[in-house]
Amino acid sequence: MAKKAKAKSKKLVIGIDLGGTNVMAALVDTSGKVKSYVHFPTEAQQGPEHVIKNIADNVKALVKKSGLTMKDIWRVGIGSPGPMDSKKGIIIGAVNLPGWKRVTLKADLEKLLGVGVGVDNDANCAAYGEQWAGAAKGASNVVGITLGTGVGGGIIIDGRLVRGANYNAAEIGHTSLNPDGRLCKCGAKGCFEQYASASAIAESAREAIRKGASSMMTELVKGDLSKITSKTVFEAMTQNDKTAIAVWNEFIKYLAAGVGNQINGLNPEVVVIAGGVINAGEKLFTPLREAVRKQTFALTFSAAKIVPAKLGELAGAIGAAGVVINEGEFYNLK
Amino acid sequence: MAKKAKAKSKKLVIGIDLGGTNVMAALVDTSGKVKSYVHFPTEAQQGPEHVIKNIADNVKALVKKSGLTMKDIWRVGIGSPGPMDSKKGIIIGAVNLPGWKRVTLKADLEKLLGVGVGVDNDANCAAYGEQWAGAAKGASNVVGITLGTGVGGGIIIDGRLVRGANYNAAEIGHTSLNPDGRLCKCGAKGCFEQYASASAIAESAREAIRKGASSMMTELVKGDLSKITSKTVFEAMTQNDKTAIAVWNEFIKYLAAGVGNQINGLNPEVVVIAGGVINAGEKLFTPLREAVRKQTFALTFSAAKIVPAKLGELAGAIGAAGVVINEGEFYNLK
Repeated sequence: MAKKAKAKSKKLVIGIDLGGTNVMAALVDTSGKVKSYVHFPTEAQQGPEHVIKNIADNVKALVKKSGLTMKDIWRVGIGSPGPMDSKKGIIIGAVNLPGWKRVTLKADLEKLLGVGVGVDNDANCAAYGEQWAGAAKGASNVVGITLGTGVGGGIIIDGRLVRGANYNAAEIGHTSLNPDGRLCKCGAKGCFEQYASASAIAESAREAIRKGASSMMTELVKGDLSKITSKTVFEAMTQNDKTAIAVWNEFIKYLAAGVGNQINGLNPEVVVIAGGVINAGEKLFTPLREAVRKQTFALTFSAAKIVPAKLGELAGAIGAAGVVINEGEFYNLK
Repeated sequence: MAKKAKAKSKKLVIGIDLGGTNVMAALVDTSGKVKSYVHFPTEAQQGPEHVIKNIADNVKALVKKSGLTMKDIWRVGIGSPGPMDSKKGIIIGAVNLPGWKRVTLKADLEKLLGVGVGVDNDANCAAYGEQWAGAAKGASNVVGITLGTGVGGGIIIDGRLVRGANYNAAEIGHTSLNPDGRLCKCGAKGCFEQYASASAIAESAREAIRKGASSMMTELVKGDLSKITSKTVFEAMTQNDKTAIAVWNEFIKYLAAGVGNQINGLNPEVVVIAGGVINAGEKLFTPLREAVRKQTFALTFSAAKIVPAKLGELAGAIGAAGVVINEGEFYNLK
């Protein structure tokens, strides 16, 4: 056992986080430590073939720059937007990657890199990264929630990534917090991300101002309401702007309901919150924990730490490395 | 492998479902087949010691009546209300079992029966029963939802029961469908069971009538609104009573949101719905599936069958047998 672990610890993998705008690729060891990394534009508008070739070229350059050859690389993991068949490594489609229809990402990258590749959902990889090597390190039952334009999710149960029947699990942003609520672009009503994404915070502020609420936010964006972001709301809130405070409290209420549902539903040890909003620090986490406490059972709540993500923009790449290291059999990797 | 499986298939276990009013105990083989069973009053008001002794006596009588001795019994599984420490087999408390405070159910039953005992949550056991030997047989990712006085839940991922950090997972009835919604007795707002339990259906009908809605339900219960049950609503609904139809539709809407959240959250292959309400048949399942479809992703929805439970009042006992057969190592069973 010790011998096997030692052999494994010598190995190096590449973890990749493929986004609509940028790609992050990291050289990671089997303990989750990043040795070096590179990020570069996705150039998504040039289509899948170009994007995949570009990723392979950058990975090879990263490996070379690290004084290695591809023969030193054990496996490659890549987190991608979906939906996908992560077993086969095929991307079925992706809103932010034009032209990606049933793209054989695993097979294509394996051909270009000469190394076994595992493909998984980007939000799953980010959550896995935090569980394996970040804010939830050491915990077996973890829910990761990323607040951005939408709300992404990843679930780890008993130390393993939850993928679901056809690899679409953990769409936490599209769990409903009100079946009579706001219509989501997914077609459902009252989705979590309609109330508690970074975009939703900004949109709620715009709505309040359009309806006549006076707020310093109007001046902060020099009258151009389209420039309001969650950061604008946070700034105004810390300066006691009543409209911003009301928007922030509404955001906390819905976020707490969404987080609480995961806690009562899955009884995790850690819920990791990621995204720029976590820069709000205790102005986010203190009221959030208090609101979650009210929405959950005392015993279940007592088991669940609610913490900010630690790995930042590297979470997805580290997690993609982690899943191919620890769950290689799922991807049929040798 | 085949040899081991054959050895296992010869074994017999006892599965028990401990309820506040009745206890069900079944002699079950390792394929999930019930050989014989007995049910008897819990006599909960007489306290834990009596209840446990009563269970042991009835189990021994069942075994004897089946022409066996306790030496023929491999293991005993018992589903109980909670919260509990299912690893240690200790019931921390149970609303419907007066006097149950940190009751060492596993140790006590092992002493009385001379056989290894595993203790788990009753709703978990019911879901496991359906996954192992009932409506979801053969599926690896299953959510079980029981609509009764409250709403109970059980989750199976990759073939294993999800217990959570301190064994309180799958409180699906206490996931919120509206953070501004009805106050639940658990202290949270908008809990699933406040809208989509059998009790909630009846309460919504009473509320509507009290607010002045005319309905044949008033005559069906001869003016005593306290006698309205979900069955009354169903009966009136099938006779085109407008109030009953409105109540039923509202129930379906919330149930669909709750089921949809499990589907988008966990991407199961099967969601099993249990409880007396499933006697409504396609008047429940057809509109439910249609409403869930609108609340979920097309791919995720396509993977998820939504079906009525098959095992009826035996589900919990069969599931309690199943978990000790298949997950004995969790309970430290030999």
